[in-house]
Amino acid sequence: MNFKTKLDHKVKMIEENLNKFLPAENNYSNMVREAMNYSLLAGGKRIRPLLMYETFQLFQGTSNLIYPFMAAIEMIHTYSLVHDDLPSMDNDLYRRGKKTTHAVYGEGMAVLAGDGLLNYAFEIVLNAEIPFHEMQSCLCALKVLAGKAGIDGMIGGQTADILAENIGDSADLEHLLFIHKNKTAALIEASMMIGAILAGASKDEINNMEQIANKIGIAFQIQDDVLDVISSLEVLGKETGSDQKNNKVTYVTLTGLEHSKEQVKKLSDEGIERLHEIEQRMGNENSFLRELLCSMIVREK
Amino acid sequence: MNFKTKLDHKVKMIEENLNKFLPAENNYSNMVREAMNYSLLAGGKRIRPLLMYETFQLFQGTSNLIYPFMAAIEMIHTYSLVHDDLPSMDNDLYRRGKKTTHAVYGEGMAVLAGDGLLNYAFEIVLNAEIPFHEMQSCLCALKVLAGKAGIDGMIGGQTADILAENIGDSADLEHLLFIHKNKTAALIEASMMIGAILAGASKDEINNMEQIANKIGIAFQIQDDVLDVISSLEVLGKETGSDQKNNKVTYVTLTGLEHSKEQVKKLSDEGIERLHEIEQRMGNENSFLRELLCSMIVREK
Repeated sequence: MNFKTKLDHKVKMIEENLNKFLPAENNYSNMVREAMNYSLLAGGKRIRPLLMYETFQLFQGTSNLIYPFMAAIEMIHTYSLVHDDLPSMDNDLYRRGKKTTHAVYGEGMAVLAGDGLLNYAFEIVLNAEIPFHEMQSCLCALKVLAGKAGIDGMIGGQTADILAENIGDSADLEHLLFIHKNKTAALIEASMMIGAILAGASKDEINNMEQIANKIGIAFQIQDDVLDVISSLEVLGKETGSDQKNNKVTYVTLTGLEHSKEQVKKLSDEGIERLHEIEQRMGNENSFLRELLCSMIVREK
Repeated sequence: MNFKTKLDHKVKMIEENLNKFLPAENNYSNMVREAMNYSLLAGGKRIRPLLMYETFQLFQGTSNLIYPFMAAIEMIHTYSLVHDDLPSMDNDLYRRGKKTTHAVYGEGMAVLAGDGLLNYAFEIVLNAEIPFHEMQSCLCALKVLAGKAGIDGMIGGQTADILAENIGDSADLEHLLFIHKNKTAALIEASMMIGAILAGASKDEINNMEQIANKIGIAFQIQDDVLDVISSLEVLGKETGSDQKNNKVTYVTLTGLEHSKEQVKKLSDEGIERLHEIEQRMGNENSFLRELLCSMIVREK
């Protein structure tokens, strides 16, 4: 099976799992549940639960807690998109060709749907049957999930992003890397760390996965900046160079296109190399995880 | 010491505890931390952590986990106010005489501050040192916290409230009680249940506290509807009968003033009586918890 076929197969499993954790209907509070489900099912590459599952596989995990955690990380990612799209934030009416949540359900309901998704991420894990001997790893995985999603992770990155928009050209490379690390890499780190934690990997291996995810996450985001400049309208589905038109500070505007490409290669090579060492230790030299990480970097959109 | 002196003393302890859990400064993400701290320190009666602590005391609890959970419940209550006040929700510029979070920090930052507070509530618990023998009760308390705060609790109540505003006069008593139960009583229930859980109380006692909190929480909210009608401008600090002016369906508009007063008395009497039985079992017949619950009902604002 080639990568694309395997990926499709695996995404299908991820989506079937997600479907099992969708909130059910309820009379008076149905609207927020509809808005949550609409947001969750409006597409997406499901990259975070995939990374979690493949890391879990690499470390030969067997815990059933992986299933609620896979749904939880996708819910947290989705809530961040719902709130980012709000009129008071990025004010986007469309995402992936579909109307955004507030465009369909109204702004107040989109705020509540985002809140509901963040809260529900914790609920589905805590509602799972947690065997006594897995309580410690469950608490550890929850700590990573909350930490990487919060003000020292994703929310912190989003805050720094708003600050960068406010100060315009004054944002420097340190500031931009803070955004990339927190807004994008933090949830990637959480995904891979939680896969390792639930599989019972050692502290060193969990730390390794954090480092790998950090490098790939930042490379992924710099690649976004690169693609914004070089991709054609046909491929990307949006106007080329939209960041420049918006006068947005990016890795490319700060360091140039060639240096940005070099950084993508350097970071992703380092991440993949580090993963390769772990693969060797685990006796699994061509993991799907590695193909998946490569596909996040070598892409056209 | 009279009730007021004891209360002041205890609120001071609650606030000192809250201060220990405030997020620290951080360069690029400082704005969201400032907005979170502003919201948390903008006043409030701290009734939820107080109820949690007094329930914990009633059951002679000793776990240090009570401290992060007390801060967590106040953070969740505060985030719900920050998001409720947003222009897309209730559009309030002032709360307790102070500017609301979005009035000071802007709407986008208020959305993020609310998200940050909800997320941080889980973080501070998960960052605590959790002894091995307390992991099960910690997970149980987290489950209650998330469940009562989410779409089957507070967020569900808020959704039903928006629905009631949309359908106006068609909202009926069942719908209104759903709102009161979920929007208000759910977090009161969480507070008292978590106090009992962390003190190691039995399942029956935890269930008892849920029932007591449910009755007091609903009575508290009906009392709000009653006070809206009967209080004078001087006492309440807002125009009497604002609900009626806004054509808002309340317990009083649906069942009349006298019946509403009777319901407040009935529910609160039932709650207090049930608490009294527990006090007797615990050999503590005049707990501060009882005075506190009474003060939530017998009040002028």
